[in-house]
Amino acid sequence: MSAGTSKKVAVIGFGNMGSGVVEALYEKGVPGLELTRVVDIDLETPRPVTVPASYLSTDWHQAVNDPAIDIIVELIGGIEPAGSIISEALRNGKDVVTANKMLLAHKGQEIFSLAADLHRRIGFRASFVGCHALIHEFQQAGVAAKSYRRIYAILNGTSNYILSTMTREGKSFEQALKEAQEKGLAETDPSDDVDGIDTANKIRILLGLITNSYRTVQAFPIEGIRNITAQDIRYAVELGYSIKLVGVIEQNEGRFNVAVHPALVPQTSLLGTLEGAYNGTELEDEYGVVSGFVAPGAGVYPTTDAIVKDLLNIAGGESLPMPSSAEELSLGSTEAAERRYYLRFSAVDQAGVLARISDIFWKHDISIAAVIQKEAVSRDFVPLVMTTHLAREGNLQEAVKRVDRMEVVRAETRVIRILNADT
Amino acid sequence: MSAGTSKKVAVIGFGNMGSGVVEALYEKGVPGLELTRVVDIDLETPRPVTVPASYLSTDWHQAVNDPAIDIIVELIGGIEPAGSIISEALRNGKDVVTANKMLLAHKGQEIFSLAADLHRRIGFRASFVGCHALIHEFQQAGVAAKSYRRIYAILNGTSNYILSTMTREGKSFEQALKEAQEKGLAETDPSDDVDGIDTANKIRILLGLITNSYRTVQAFPIEGIRNITAQDIRYAVELGYSIKLVGVIEQNEGRFNVAVHPALVPQTSLLGTLEGAYNGTELEDEYGVVSGFVAPGAGVYPTTDAIVKDLLNIAGGESLPMPSSAEELSLGSTEAAERRYYLRFSAVDQAGVLARISDIFWKHDISIAAVIQKEAVSRDFVPLVMTTHLAREGNLQEAVKRVDRMEVVRAETRVIRILNADT
Repeated sequence: MSAGTSKKVAVIGFGNMGSGVVEALYEKGVPGLELTRVVDIDLETPRPVTVPASYLSTDWHQAVNDPAIDIIVELIGGIEPAGSIISEALRNGKDVVTANKMLLAHKGQEIFSLAADLHRRIGFRASFVGCHALIHEFQQAGVAAKSYRRIYAILNGTSNYILSTMTREGKSFEQALKEAQEKGLAETDPSDDVDGIDTANKIRILLGLITNSYRTVQAFPIEGIRNITAQDIRYAVELGYSIKLVGVIEQNEGRFNVAVHPALVPQTSLLGTLEGAYNGTELEDEYGVVSGFVAPGAGVYPTTDAIVKDLLNIAGGESLPMPSSAEELSLGSTEAAERRYYLRFSAVDQAGVLARISDIFWKHDISIAAVIQKEAVSRDFVPLVMTTHLAREGNLQEAVKRVDRMEVVRAETRVIRILNADT
Repeated sequence: MSAGTSKKVAVIGFGNMGSGVVEALYEKGVPGLELTRVVDIDLETPRPVTVPASYLSTDWHQAVNDPAIDIIVELIGGIEPAGSIISEALRNGKDVVTANKMLLAHKGQEIFSLAADLHRRIGFRASFVGCHALIHEFQQAGVAAKSYRRIYAILNGTSNYILSTMTREGKSFEQALKEAQEKGLAETDPSDDVDGIDTANKIRILLGLITNSYRTVQAFPIEGIRNITAQDIRYAVELGYSIKLVGVIEQNEGRFNVAVHPALVPQTSLLGTLEGAYNGTELEDEYGVVSGFVAPGAGVYPTTDAIVKDLLNIAGGESLPMPSSAEELSLGSTEAAERRYYLRFSAVDQAGVLARISDIFWKHDISIAAVIQKEAVSRDFVPLVMTTHLAREGNLQEAVKRVDRMEVVRAETRVIRILNADT
């Protein structure tokens, strides 16, 4: 960037995050960046920061079609009009910075291929603030031909907050969700967060980064945390684990295993110790070297920081990590995946139940690592919990189906995967 | 980097790390980088990788004075001739990549100022592999005027391995050191690692990065782990802490508190859970936002990876984080620092000892947070352990001096700082 010339920036979306960016660029000021336009359909609501009236507009075309503007910061979220804003900005020769993970996860193919064709840059650190330092790591991953064996990540602060509360205070999912909603940490409709959708969006973006491909991957299993009980958490803790909502990317000879689900992770691991609204990522490279990152997963300051860093990279003429090929990825079959499992059976307290269940597992080539059978708390149920050694997911599902058909089993067996780097 | 032109690279130092880099550049190959020269005073010892004889030389001048070479990778370590190699390379218009933390910590002022004057780049991710992702974070810290309130870091894998072994197996420092030496994880002369010198070198480099100043800072307190006993570790665990060797940089209104010492950190914190030879860094920015990084602190693959990333940044014409000013930093006084403390007293088992010690602390404005007094294990000694609330270091030292002069106190009181982000 030559001295004296500042890049002109428009911010579209003047909500909480937009206000943070406007404060950084306009009130505090960042050398090399000049805010010249702020767009929002609502210009009436008071904001914590003010800009000259001449900056304001309710029409995003005024930003996107203005030849004087170099960079568009898109902060309105959702698919439309955000997608049109970004596409038109790219076509008009502008670079783009966005925090819009839903758009990038679902329309990444259109947007990144357009940017690649037009030689424009898209900064999207803010779309997953919780691991934007990680993006730097990936930035050269393609060039250095470095491949990651596995990435396990906690990417949703709301569900992590809920699971932390359940663990610490023994609360039910419903109680912990209500508490999070009262504190403003969960939406009235929490399904994006607790059903794993937000985590899956971020996992799609991450996958694009590490593979350098913007091609939309086929559907992968997504499971949220609504079924996790305080009881399961207590057993997990007794076994030395925490229960977390984890995004998983595993690579084995070019085939990817991608999923989002609750998992038991060792209490003393980076993910196992992650409390509250934090995000964390563990990654293992091709040499078996494990690194980890922990950072807040959301918030005005971390988001603003991520956006300003992207803007500075663009203003400085530096490259930004961005998938740039259309390569199709091959996903491994879920059935063939090998995992350890936590199982909680709802069986009537009757002699021989443990033996019969063990027999079914043995016949499905599943070996048992640990058993917790406590004295029955009622006449009816015996709490029976097992963990397995590595087993094929297909075998496990078959065995559980057989167990669940036993007349002494009164409810579906709870199955939670164990993600343990050491096995 | 224009297509078809590769940057020519010379590696000086063909040991373990040099072999890793040669393997990456020559055997595997990295687009944009061409290895053309390998220098070592010993060309006889067999290496895990071979290069054409024409590449080899015992004279580093052949690399540094060769106009065809673009980048020098310095991997011999120590102050000289490494310092001369780097200076001459810079003067000859070459960029430099180095893993030499001792040189950068002690001669950083000469080297970085020379590089700044000559507009050359120095890549030094490999000088602290354990947090090179962090360097990216700092890269724009200066530009974004972002300041960090505190950095707590475990930067020495050897001492962390020793402390982990002591914690897990109840071993003494001497036993754990011997085990580490037998496993090749500690040098025959371990003082660089266990006396905090290596950590202090990395802290100096980090400080230069976050302040953007290469000016050598005055001496700061450095304390190693030789005096840590298995007993102290047991008490720490009982109180909910791990004992770790921590590098500390704290900033308060432009004054820096810099130190290296053993510390009690919460067991469930990022640093508290760090086991074995890993490195970890916790940082808190000006908004109170905490991020963390965990990565292996050493090893051929992580080091090679860091070096290749630096080389790719240089080949790609990208900027590298590097202190570029001569600003003098102001260090805060140690006495004025406020900390929590762990104290273990060696007092004779006699009525009133606890009361007298408490009285001395009360008179020095130090309030006690927790006390562990167990039944006496021998006729003579009563194990008495305390933790304090926040107290001025000056007051604490005074109070401990008074306690240690009491006739019932038979050995120096063990004082270990508590680093707890929450207090």
